[in-house]
Parts: sequence; structure tokens; C-alpha cells
Amino acid sequence: MRDLDDGAPGARAALTELYAHTGRAFVVGITGAPGVGKSTLVDALVVPYRAAGTRVGVVAVDPSSPFSGGALLGDRVRMQRHATDDGVFIRSLATRGQLGGLSRSTTAAVAVLDAAGFGLILVETVGVGQAEVDIAGAADAIVVVTAPGLGDGVQALKAGLLEIADVLVVNKGDRDGADLALRDLTTMLQISTRHAWPGEAPRPAPALVRTVAAAGQGLPELVAALEAVRAAPAADRARRRRRQATAQVLAIVSEITRAEARAAIGGDERPGPFAQTIDAVAARTLDPWSAAERLSNR
Amino acid sequence: MRDLDDGAPGARAALTELYAHTGRAFVVGITGAPGVGKSTLVDALVVPYRAAGTRVGVVAVDPSSPFSGGALLGDRVRMQRHATDDGVFIRSLATRGQLGGLSRSTTAAVAVLDAAGFGLILVETVGVGQAEVDIAGAADAIVVVTAPGLGDGVQALKAGLLEIADVLVVNKGDRDGADLALRDLTTMLQISTRHAWPGEAPRPAPALVRTVAAAGQGLPELVAALEAVRAAPAADRARRRRRQATAQVLAIVSEITRAEARAAIGGDERPGPFAQTIDAVAARTLDPWSAAERLSNR
Repeated sequence: MRDLDDGAPGARAALTELYAHTGRAFVVGITGAPGVGKSTLVDALVVPYRAAGTRVGVVAVDPSSPFSGGALLGDRVRMQRHATDDGVFIRSLATRGQLGGLSRSTTAAVAVLDAAGFGLILVETVGVGQAEVDIAGAADAIVVVTAPGLGDGVQALKAGLLEIADVLVVNKGDRDGADLALRDLTTMLQISTRHAWPGEAPRPAPALVRTVAAAGQGLPELVAALEAVRAAPAADRARRRRRQATAQVLAIVSEITRAEARAAIGGDERPGPFAQTIDAVAARTLDPWSAAERLSNR
Repeated sequence: MRDLDDGAPGARAALTELYAHTGRAFVVGITGAPGVGKSTLVDALVVPYRAAGTRVGVVAVDPSSPFSGGALLGDRVRMQRHATDDGVFIRSLATRGQLGGLSRSTTAAVAVLDAAGFGLILVETVGVGQAEVDIAGAADAIVVVTAPGLGDGVQALKAGLLEIADVLVVNKGDRDGADLALRDLTTMLQISTRHAWPGEAPRPAPALVRTVAAAGQGLPELVAALEAVRAAPAADRARRRRRQATAQVLAIVSEITRAEARAAIGGDERPGPFAQTIDAVAARTLDPWSAAERLSNR
């Protein structure tokens, strides 16, 4: 899959062809701050779906160093319990250094797994940046995970993740503070306005599920909540597909432009045609907004 | 400042003029996962600089809902202790809904404070996305904050933040697990390769500082670490300025392109010239990579 997500020309042709065979998988985005136990939850969620005979793909998106383009300590050893199960495929994706490309890689990995017949694809992301929202926007269902003890529950979720959630999970639900976190979230869901995505019907409030992923607790409830999202009316699903397509395409456009702009600037050793523009910004004789417009208009 | 960061034409002209008067402030990016106590640390860091007579600006960047373009529960009440101090200016910035614009807004806010003579500008960001790395890349010094008890310390910092840090802070340093976190981080710094930014000399390992921000502990050490970064040789500073300019311009280019691409697609109710392209992706008759290329080439 390395060739595919590197965007090599031959691989791109293969992906284009393959894309017509996608759209059957149920793609679930799982996001939340570091430390809430996302990996453990993903690991636990594989179990009931495997028991039902579904093949499960996991794409763990790992925003990483702007230098090395790889995770700092390499892929963590994870999901040992599924290591010998052919029906589970796990792939970690890291950003490609300064060229970005995270959305492109993720879209490619999901498409390959989908076309290969994996019925459930879990896309695990860390953090709250634009890329995360894009990736989440491309999923059929979005699970936002939190846990007691991350500052206050409100702060840990303030980044708009509550709004994009179809299912809200309080993991580590046996810890001190879990009851309080659930109560806080219930209140937040009551007082906050739930916006509709543009052109779509107002969405129901997200299901709130307490889990102890490490002990497998709450998993049946999580599966039921996900399946309820999957069973949405056909018209809603069609609108969602359109929104997913928009999110995917916009994210890839951003990445393409960024890579082109960086190439136009060049580095200190290989200055590009716009290197002087950057020098002027660094010297404060040109402002960054004007510089960006020049580059964009190129 | 609302007009400025909305990018209105008149405001843009003002910003362009104003930009020539910037470059005197010491801009410090402070980043880390939710719940590590960034706001408390920022609040505490204001104190010693104010005691030295420095005017301090705080820009709290708040990635937020893709729907409302505002923080979910509005700006939190914060920094009460500095509320009556004219030498402290605090501004929260949220994303502008689906148009993005976070980097543009942040760059504008920092420029205004810089030109207005604020000697220290603290830019507080949550999360680990590309926008965060861009914003951090535009700072004169980058402080990465972690805290004990966020899963394991390694996971909380795996997102490449360790690599961009000039100063690494373990906040809540009086908690259980703080010693372990400091030991883990020391080990990580020893075994991990510290890459140079392109065209720059290899960077020294980040200073490691333990703080209890809520009690003001560790602040003198943090100030000393920051001032050591500020005192870098002139050649290093010049390279850093160029890197900052690149990060700012690339981030703004991404935002401009994204907004243009979204306008070209339109919404369900106001379809743009590329709406059919999105329909084709949603119907799986066109793949998202080809769609993105069409939009980019427009």
C-alpha cells in the first residue's frame, strides 16, 4: 500500500479503477484526545464484529513529525490479540513530512480495504485539527471518545468534536469521575444547539455510551449505537455520502496546493521561483497575506 | 480585530502596512493535548514577564465546530487575575467554520499585538493537526506541554510534538506519575534522533522543565529556558525567521485554496460549477483524487 499512498502515477491509475468497487464498507471514524484509550477501544470493537463474521480493517492515522514523516518511536505494538486473525488488517499511517498527504493516504487506505471486501473499517485519529475533521467527515459514523480525568470533560471536548459525533463514548468508565463526566456531557447535549450539516436535516443527538474498553464493557451498547447510525434513512445516507465526498476532495485539494506551494518556494539549498517572496516576508518588507495571494495566483 | 481577521479589503491594506512594524515581539507558541493545563501555564507565565515590565499579549487559538465557527460554550472565563492589567491583552480565536482561516487569523492577531508594542506574545494552541504545526512553526520558541496521567507519556507526545519543541514542560509536576513522565521523556530525548529543520544547523535537545503552574512552581526555570532560546546566535535566528515566513505563507495558501475550492463546489442549495464533480464522487463514478486534481487545476 506504500506505493498507493505515495501517489505514484501507476498506483493512482489503480486507485481510480478500484474506487468504483468501493462504497460497501461501513467506515467508522474514532477520534479523541491522546490518552482516552482509543486504541484499546478499537481493539475491543473488533471482537463483536469478528464474532459476527465481518472482516475488519483498521487504519490508525498518526500525525507525526514534520521532519521524519514517521511516528517518533515507530508503530506501536498493538492489537496483539488479533495478530493471527486473517480477517483483521491493521495499518498505521503517518504524515509524509512537510508535504502533508495525510488525507490522501487515509482515503487511499480506506478505499483499498473497502474494495477488498472488508465490511467494517475503523479509522482511528488523534487530535482536533482540520485534517482530523476532514477525515471524520469522510466516515459513515463518527465516534468521539473521551475519558474521565482529562482536565474537565468540557475542555477536553470543546473543540467542536461534540458537534461532529454520532456516538459519544466515555471510556475508562470505571474510573473516578466517570459519573460526573457522563452527567456533564448529558447537560452539554441538552443545552447545546445541534447544527445540521449544510443541506441536511437536523441530526439526532449523539448516543452516549459508557465503556471500559480494556474489560470489554459497554461494547454491545456501542455496537448497537453504531448500527443505529448505519440504519439511517436512504435519503440521509445519500446526503452524507455527498458530504463525505466534499470533505475528501477538499482535503486532497488542500494537500495538493500545499505541496505545490512548498515546491514553488523551495528550500534554502534549492530555492524555487518564489524563494525571494519568502525572503521578503522574513525581512518584513512583504506581508504573509500578500505573499500567499501571489503564490495562490500562480 | 474582528475586521482584520475576517480579511476585509480595507483591513487587509491596514495589515499590509502594519506588518512592516512587526518583528520586535518574542512570540512563544504553547501547545499540548487538552487537559495538560496550558491555560493555567500561560496565565502563570504572564506574571514574571509583567513583573519585568514587559507587555504581554495572549492569543488562544481554539479549533472549534465546523458548524458554528465558534467555541462550543463560548470563550471560557480565564485569566481573571490579569483582568485589570492594561499591560495584558487576551484574545481567543476560533476557526471560521468551513472556510478555515485559523492561520490567517492567528497571523493577523500576532502582527497587530507585535506592532502595538507587546514584547511577549503567547500563542496557545490545542491539538496536533497540521494547523497546529503551522502555527507553532511561526513562533520564535515552541513550548510543548504534557502532564502525568494522560495515558502514557509516550503516547501523549507521539505526534511529533517532541521534535518541534524548544522547551518541554511536564506540568502538574506534583502529581503521581510526574517523576516517571520526566524519566520517560529524558529517555526519549536520548534515544530519538533530533532532526534539523531543512537548511538549519542541528538543534539542541529541548530543555525539560517541571512545573506546577497552578502554584507558580517551575516558572523561573521556564523563563530561563525561553530566554536561552531567544538568545540564539543571529544566523540561527535569521534561518528561523525564514522558516516562520514559510510556515505562515503555506498555511495561508492552504486556507485560500480551500475556501476557493469550497466555493467552486457550492452546497446542496447553491451548487457551484464543480457540484457535479462531487456528485460523481458520491456516486463512485469518479475517484476523489481525480476530482481534487480537476479542482486544483481550475
